[in-house]
Amino acid sequence: MPASLLAPDDQRFGLDRRAMLPGPFALLSGQSLSVLEIGYETYGRLNADASNAILICHALTGDQHVASLNPRTGKPGWWPRLVGPGLPIDPERHFIIASNVLGGCSGSSGPGSIDPATGQRYAMHFPVITIRDMVRAQALLLDHLGVGVLQAVVGGSMGGMQALDWAVAFPDRVRSVVAIASAARHSAQNIAFHEVGRQAIMADPNWAGGDYPVDRPPAAGLAVARMAAHITYLSEEGLTAKFGRRLQNREALGFGFDAEFQVESYLRHQGLAFTERFDANSYLYITRALDYFDLAAPHGGQLALAFAGTRTRFAVISFTSDWLYPTAESRRVVRALNAAGAAVSFVELESPFGHDAFLLEAPEMNRVVDGFLRAGS
Amino acid sequence: MPASLLAPDDQRFGLDRRAMLPGPFALLSGQSLSVLEIGYETYGRLNADASNAILICHALTGDQHVASLNPRTGKPGWWPRLVGPGLPIDPERHFIIASNVLGGCSGSSGPGSIDPATGQRYAMHFPVITIRDMVRAQALLLDHLGVGVLQAVVGGSMGGMQALDWAVAFPDRVRSVVAIASAARHSAQNIAFHEVGRQAIMADPNWAGGDYPVDRPPAAGLAVARMAAHITYLSEEGLTAKFGRRLQNREALGFGFDAEFQVESYLRHQGLAFTERFDANSYLYITRALDYFDLAAPHGGQLALAFAGTRTRFAVISFTSDWLYPTAESRRVVRALNAAGAAVSFVELESPFGHDAFLLEAPEMNRVVDGFLRAGS
Repeated sequence: MPASLLAPDDQRFGLDRRAMLPGPFALLSGQSLSVLEIGYETYGRLNADASNAILICHALTGDQHVASLNPRTGKPGWWPRLVGPGLPIDPERHFIIASNVLGGCSGSSGPGSIDPATGQRYAMHFPVITIRDMVRAQALLLDHLGVGVLQAVVGGSMGGMQALDWAVAFPDRVRSVVAIASAARHSAQNIAFHEVGRQAIMADPNWAGGDYPVDRPPAAGLAVARMAAHITYLSEEGLTAKFGRRLQNREALGFGFDAEFQVESYLRHQGLAFTERFDANSYLYITRALDYFDLAAPHGGQLALAFAGTRTRFAVISFTSDWLYPTAESRRVVRALNAAGAAVSFVELESPFGHDAFLLEAPEMNRVVDGFLRAGS
Repeated sequence: MPASLLAPDDQRFGLDRRAMLPGPFALLSGQSLSVLEIGYETYGRLNADASNAILICHALTGDQHVASLNPRTGKPGWWPRLVGPGLPIDPERHFIIASNVLGGCSGSSGPGSIDPATGQRYAMHFPVITIRDMVRAQALLLDHLGVGVLQAVVGGSMGGMQALDWAVAFPDRVRSVVAIASAARHSAQNIAFHEVGRQAIMADPNWAGGDYPVDRPPAAGLAVARMAAHITYLSEEGLTAKFGRRLQNREALGFGFDAEFQVESYLRHQGLAFTERFDANSYLYITRALDYFDLAAPHGGQLALAFAGTRTRFAVISFTSDWLYPTAESRRVVRALNAAGAAVSFVELESPFGHDAFLLEAPEMNRVVDGFLRAGS
């Protein structure tokens, strides 16, 4: 991100910021946090009438480093294909905000944070959080930044859930929502996969009830959780195209238990690499927040009622081969929005890449997002 | 199973038998077993012209107790809906044989067996086995029982793979094959899920490189493996119908990490219950055998060549909601059989129950199997 696209003078703006917001911050569970820390970053400048702010929400294992180097991992941002100069979300035109979710492990309050009451890490004493709590924390961050109304909230996967929830929780603060590869609830199968991951972490003796030392995390359990989840991010078709039954660095079957197939080697790598950048307890808390997510629940299962009276515009995008949050879930959102009389665009995009499609090169997705944002600006 | 339907006089026939077959038993890997033990049982009697023998092959975690109480678990057999008096596979008409697969943990040689060379359990010194090795062990069992040619080999899932492989390995010994909810190869996604399960087991410190005491198995890891696999046995639709987002014994979200959703509770139960009846090392070996399975591999990927010249009749059955071994894989088998000029019946049955459908009440499946077996008898 060129320095000219970062607001210079005010220390609140720029890359890799921290906000320490005074509490108590009340949570949906009834518990509260005495202080709320938020890791975030901003690109671009708020315009004169404060009408160009776009909030980007990240997925389960994402962070605030959307289009800039992650200073901790040294890796590039996770959405450089959609966010950046000349792209649909453009720091030359938009004031872009991205924060690490509540419960995360990249600067925001989470189970790895110090509990001011004890001086120790919260670990499993951190209160269970929800998508709504994440969204309310983001709203406080916007207050801190002086942003009243958002031009848009944009997110994929869990980020899309936050975007949808923004329109429900703060209908007057968000003019438009872009929800990509997402859903208004977690299905039984979604919950099931998350439970496997949680059980894998908790089965690792190093987890120790959550009280592991920072330098001895339950890496083996977390790696297994990530491997299981990773399969759900890809399509059967994509896995076959990418790996098929090809062997890894060998000509013939080895009749052993090494990673002989490329897909095994790939998964093991994904699992291991993940443990170097993510906290196991955060994984527990954020998957729980996802499982709890069901926008229709407070309305007796009538999703349309969640959006009653909304004046927010919506763009809903799904991918054909996404079986984690399949098109049927996006259609359910669209039907509810239509029933609520909302302005909604829906498109299902062809892709062989499964759920991960939203993170990959997707020119059609970019066209849809660009057109939608320009139409509403 | 009424006693009248068990061949009485010969100790080779009846429930819960063991055959100790002299080796060496050569394996595809090049290794061999010095002795081959097979746990099996038979129902019914071989007729005068020895033309009514049906071999039933079990799935990954099945056993030889198809339609009789399992003497170790006290649980009923696993296919009582298809096998029994008055059913398509009927001990009043058929001589029925079912054996525990090589590598298993229900009486056949496997990693839990004693290695005669050391007097210790094989554990991970057991040679890696393949579906072909399982089939060859079954052929030796048939020799032992005096059965030359099978009227049919019938199996679902991994059992279907063995059935298909029978026609390839012993074309002159099998007149017909019934392969249900199966495939001629393991896909990248299939391998990926198995690798997650294996890594979960191996990540459990109790696994100890396979050398765990019988009374301290890697139960936590095996339970996680089973949970992940179990999701693949059910359909998203079936999970939603059976559990949806319903809570377990509570009115509202508990904001904790107990099994709050019914689907979590169900999965945890499945995982735990499995550890009481199955050996973790056997799980490693049998999943490996499945991953290695690819009938087309010796023929440059040309599946039809595997069946060239076959005179065996085939019935191939798939279920609409099975995403583990989807209809596309069955169609691939059918296309290859057609190309090989084989007699093949194919039917895709409607079911919301995913891969597990073949184990459940499935009247149409029964009609298809019954008709197919009667036409060829």
